[in-house]
Amino acid sequence: MHDISLNRDVMVIHKALAAKNRKLFDDNKVFAVNIMGAVGSGKTALIELLCDKMKEVKIGVIAGDVISEVDAKRLRKKKKPVVGINTGKECHLDAHLVDHALEKLPLAGLDFLFIENVGNLICPVDFELGSHLNVVVVSVSEGDDTIEKHPAIFLTADAALINKIDIAKAVDANVDKMVADAKKINPGLQVIPVSIKKDVGVDDFIRWLKDARGKN
Amino acid sequence: MHDISLNRDVMVIHKALAAKNRKLFDDNKVFAVNIMGAVGSGKTALIELLCDKMKEVKIGVIAGDVISEVDAKRLRKKKKPVVGINTGKECHLDAHLVDHALEKLPLAGLDFLFIENVGNLICPVDFELGSHLNVVVVSVSEGDDTIEKHPAIFLTADAALINKIDIAKAVDANVDKMVADAKKINPGLQVIPVSIKKDVGVDDFIRWLKDARGKN
Repeated sequence: MHDISLNRDVMVIHKALAAKNRKLFDDNKVFAVNIMGAVGSGKTALIELLCDKMKEVKIGVIAGDVISEVDAKRLRKKKKPVVGINTGKECHLDAHLVDHALEKLPLAGLDFLFIENVGNLICPVDFELGSHLNVVVVSVSEGDDTIEKHPAIFLTADAALINKIDIAKAVDANVDKMVADAKKINPGLQVIPVSIKKDVGVDDFIRWLKDARGKN
Repeated sequence: MHDISLNRDVMVIHKALAAKNRKLFDDNKVFAVNIMGAVGSGKTALIELLCDKMKEVKIGVIAGDVISEVDAKRLRKKKKPVVGINTGKECHLDAHLVDHALEKLPLAGLDFLFIENVGNLICPVDFELGSHLNVVVVSVSEGDDTIEKHPAIFLTADAALINKIDIAKAVDANVDKMVADAKKINPGLQVIPVSIKKDVGVDDFIRWLKDARGKN
């Protein structure tokens, strides 16, 4: 992101908007989860699988993307309320964009709101959305040095899913190194190796997610 | 990137700095190639392989990264002049950062300069570095909808390498779709499917690269 732009006033406004969103979530008893990660890490696939597996709760989705409606279209097939946000050239969602998307969602009827951020490991870090949790999805095919190369996003996250462990060998990635790197950066981080495609480890994530909601 | 920051003056300064870099490249008969792509797409691996395969030319490298020296360290093993740039929180290189890196490189003795941009498919688009060519590396493991989701970077690029075609089947990616998407966005784009790991298709890229240098 471009520091020249982010003067104090802008960030204060962003924080206030994030707090406004959080209040709206809490007033409506919706647990909001900001899902971040690079292009192709598996964010959309994760939300698709959560829609399939968490039948007992009501889910809504905000799907952020630079310019296309590809992810929003994929997610609408799950028959849940989905609002797509196009950021234009912005490499992250912000609280203001989420605020507008919320106007189009039936919040009062939801238990969970999954917010798919724009595919990026750098930009979303500084922009709180008002979510209760921040989750990063990182895939082994990004290289097993990806976590140590992007400490900031793992430092601000509550959980990290290390995805595509089923192809770790094929892409020469060391999952244990990735787990250790994440824990070193943020000892409080919940780190869960998963294969979203093969539905491995995702139940552990769902358990953690429901537990976190219960504590809220 | 954040539009609020990029006022006209800033962009004019950037363009002037890019032109200054280009003049420096031309004065020193160095052909500069800006290599962009998402995290884990294979930018560093590509430059490593080019160093191994292009023995008959003199290569220098600028390795951009947010915070770490991981890529620069990898590339230094190739015994070429390598300068690492850390952008801090910025999600792209800019002409000013490259300008500073150039001070540390023996430009007069180089034929090619490979500039590895920060891992990102969004931010580098608007920041000319002064390079002769812009190349995007995109891997099949990012999902075969990645190109259609990020048209801007493919529109400004001269070539696109579609990498990791050896694992296309394992990650359910349709390489033909990716080629077609890239060509649809930018009919003049040189699109080359490759496996950098298996050294497939990279000779085609090297041929194109040398040809482009000859025409310069």
